[in-house]
Amino acid sequence: MKTQVAIIGAGPSGLLLGQLLTRQGIDNVILERKSGEYVLSRIRAGVLEQGMVDLLREAGVDQRMDEEGEVHDGVELAVENRRVRVDLAGLTGGKTVMVYGQTEVTRDLMEARDAIGATTIYETDNVQPHDLKSDHPYVTFEKDGETHRLDCDYIAGCDGFHGISRKSIPEGHIKEFEKVYPFGWLGLLSDTPPVADELIYAQHERGFALCSMRSRTRSRYYIQVALDEKVEDWSDERFWDELKRRIPDEVAAKLVTGPSIEKSIAPLRSFVVEPMQYGNLFLVGDAAHIVPPTGAKGLNLAASDVNTLYRLMVKVYQEGRTDLIANYSQTCLKRIWKAERFSWWMTTMLHKFSDEPDFATRMQQAELDYVTNSEAGLTTIAENYVGLPYESLE
Amino acid sequence: MKTQVAIIGAGPSGLLLGQLLTRQGIDNVILERKSGEYVLSRIRAGVLEQGMVDLLREAGVDQRMDEEGEVHDGVELAVENRRVRVDLAGLTGGKTVMVYGQTEVTRDLMEARDAIGATTIYETDNVQPHDLKSDHPYVTFEKDGETHRLDCDYIAGCDGFHGISRKSIPEGHIKEFEKVYPFGWLGLLSDTPPVADELIYAQHERGFALCSMRSRTRSRYYIQVALDEKVEDWSDERFWDELKRRIPDEVAAKLVTGPSIEKSIAPLRSFVVEPMQYGNLFLVGDAAHIVPPTGAKGLNLAASDVNTLYRLMVKVYQEGRTDLIANYSQTCLKRIWKAERFSWWMTTMLHKFSDEPDFATRMQQAELDYVTNSEAGLTTIAENYVGLPYESLE
Repeated sequence: MKTQVAIIGAGPSGLLLGQLLTRQGIDNVILERKSGEYVLSRIRAGVLEQGMVDLLREAGVDQRMDEEGEVHDGVELAVENRRVRVDLAGLTGGKTVMVYGQTEVTRDLMEARDAIGATTIYETDNVQPHDLKSDHPYVTFEKDGETHRLDCDYIAGCDGFHGISRKSIPEGHIKEFEKVYPFGWLGLLSDTPPVADELIYAQHERGFALCSMRSRTRSRYYIQVALDEKVEDWSDERFWDELKRRIPDEVAAKLVTGPSIEKSIAPLRSFVVEPMQYGNLFLVGDAAHIVPPTGAKGLNLAASDVNTLYRLMVKVYQEGRTDLIANYSQTCLKRIWKAERFSWWMTTMLHKFSDEPDFATRMQQAELDYVTNSEAGLTTIAENYVGLPYESLE
Repeated sequence: MKTQVAIIGAGPSGLLLGQLLTRQGIDNVILERKSGEYVLSRIRAGVLEQGMVDLLREAGVDQRMDEEGEVHDGVELAVENRRVRVDLAGLTGGKTVMVYGQTEVTRDLMEARDAIGATTIYETDNVQPHDLKSDHPYVTFEKDGETHRLDCDYIAGCDGFHGISRKSIPEGHIKEFEKVYPFGWLGLLSDTPPVADELIYAQHERGFALCSMRSRTRSRYYIQVALDEKVEDWSDERFWDELKRRIPDEVAAKLVTGPSIEKSIAPLRSFVVEPMQYGNLFLVGDAAHIVPPTGAKGLNLAASDVNTLYRLMVKVYQEGRTDLIANYSQTCLKRIWKAERFSWWMTTMLHKFSDEPDFATRMQQAELDYVTNSEAGLTTIAENYVGLPYESLE
């Protein structure tokens, strides 16, 4: 088998990259370890920056998003019982975010890929990139017990934090930066109407809580929990009770509870590798970087990597500019580090770190006090939340 | 001896409080452990917020400040060789700072106190406040070998971090919050013209540097050094060479060097006690809190404490409102914690913390990259640097 760009991973990054490339006539094949159904069963984020929305439009997958997605022009911060609205649109000259679940984005992209007739090979085993430093890299994989070889010009590693792509880079060629937080998020998905029209990020002495939604009828709530908590110890009732304690009283009074569809605990981590490319392998999204979910940046950062790689590939195949591809990593990292900072900052400012108030606790309180009472402070949240501009290629 | 307010310490806080009280007809006596000459020999800060300037005017000590002080409407940040101006006035609706040395402020206040005929007793030994919880507190001290007793209504502890005032509060009644930084500042004072019209805060891979001034002919420069450095190992030449390496090339090219008048190393510390009052003892300025000097907030925070205590005393003696005095600590602390946050943030963002780049280093770089390229980010620096508004009393 032969293609121009081999894409490892059929999550939203791989599918979006594939769709954009295919529409520009650049041949690509996606290899995915799991089934399509499995990919769609993963519960993930749901806040899309304007830049990602624009990219989905460019990929031609905006129809259902426009019908079912909800444009949000604000988010709310709650500090104990005090509520402060971050007027995203007002503070950023009209920018907004789109609330539309990652699962829906993935489904739309899968359908578009089927419609355009591009190849995705699901349930592949032992996917392995080879000869990354040569002009003729290739990927081997097993499908239904047989080994196959996919020759290509470039390999896009869109296979997430645990994927093979990053692990294929020989030791000593990338440097890892990491911060692990001493808590996780327990998330609950339910077919209940959201408690408010906008997301609520709540700082509370019992720990952080987030009220979010996927649609007008499906809600997603999170509470900060210790890393040793087990999901089986959290009945729906216990979850709802704890959530109510952490959100402002007038919000708690309006909360509609119901049975959970899904409940899970995720650890919080900041992680980046430098550089994000090795020879003709390019790491995209979670394969190269992880953010804690507090800033809603994970999926959006993956989209901005896709944007960069896509435009560089167009330069290669339509203008013969193979030189620019060397800038992929540095172009991506400039924006990634700023989003990592925002995610780390929001996480640090809103979570509970210690039982006994200490200097760091007071810094956290002073930061919230300052930021929520300053238009400039709120603007620094707003302009990062809607997404900083994409970096230019050159 | 008897007075209304006993003030311990004849630094700028004690002198400013005394002057304001005296002008309102509130009797006060200042007790100082050192001589007046010694107090004036201490080299300290030189950037006054508008609020402090206004308070000095209210105290009637603005004449020489207006003649010799320099109004600054901007400061500069240098990130390696990149220079970014923080337009203080433009970003805050016209607010500025006044560059006028703390030594000069102290001298003006001493002269005004002499002129108004209020009592300062210098070179007192074993100053000790007593009966703080009673309505009749008093202070004992020795002068020329004899023990004296000063009866009063209230005691203002303006005697700095190492003073007796805070130490007079019984254990368990105050809580200390502290952060010690793993470096110090080596400062050099010289009679040379400043290298630039505005202060330059320089982040550099070799460590932080600050170009500041006391007047058009007297400069004060600082460089970050390890805590185990000794001032005797730093010849003037070595200092100037190191400074030049850390500031932008075009600034270094203009640097006028000369012999040092003073050279010393100061550690960097964040420190706050809660509450700042115990019975009829009120802690003011460094007696209750220390900031690292990076935000130029130390003297200014002392002035805002003085402002609060002064206005509360006026309420007591002119309106009989003895109830409001209970709010002293909480009124002060709201503003103090925000200034502590700003000082800690500027310190964290601009200093070198580790030799090997790690996640924290990248956060620091991303923060500088974001803040210096965002008007909102620069505004958060500007509005804190010129000073947040004074808190109201009630």
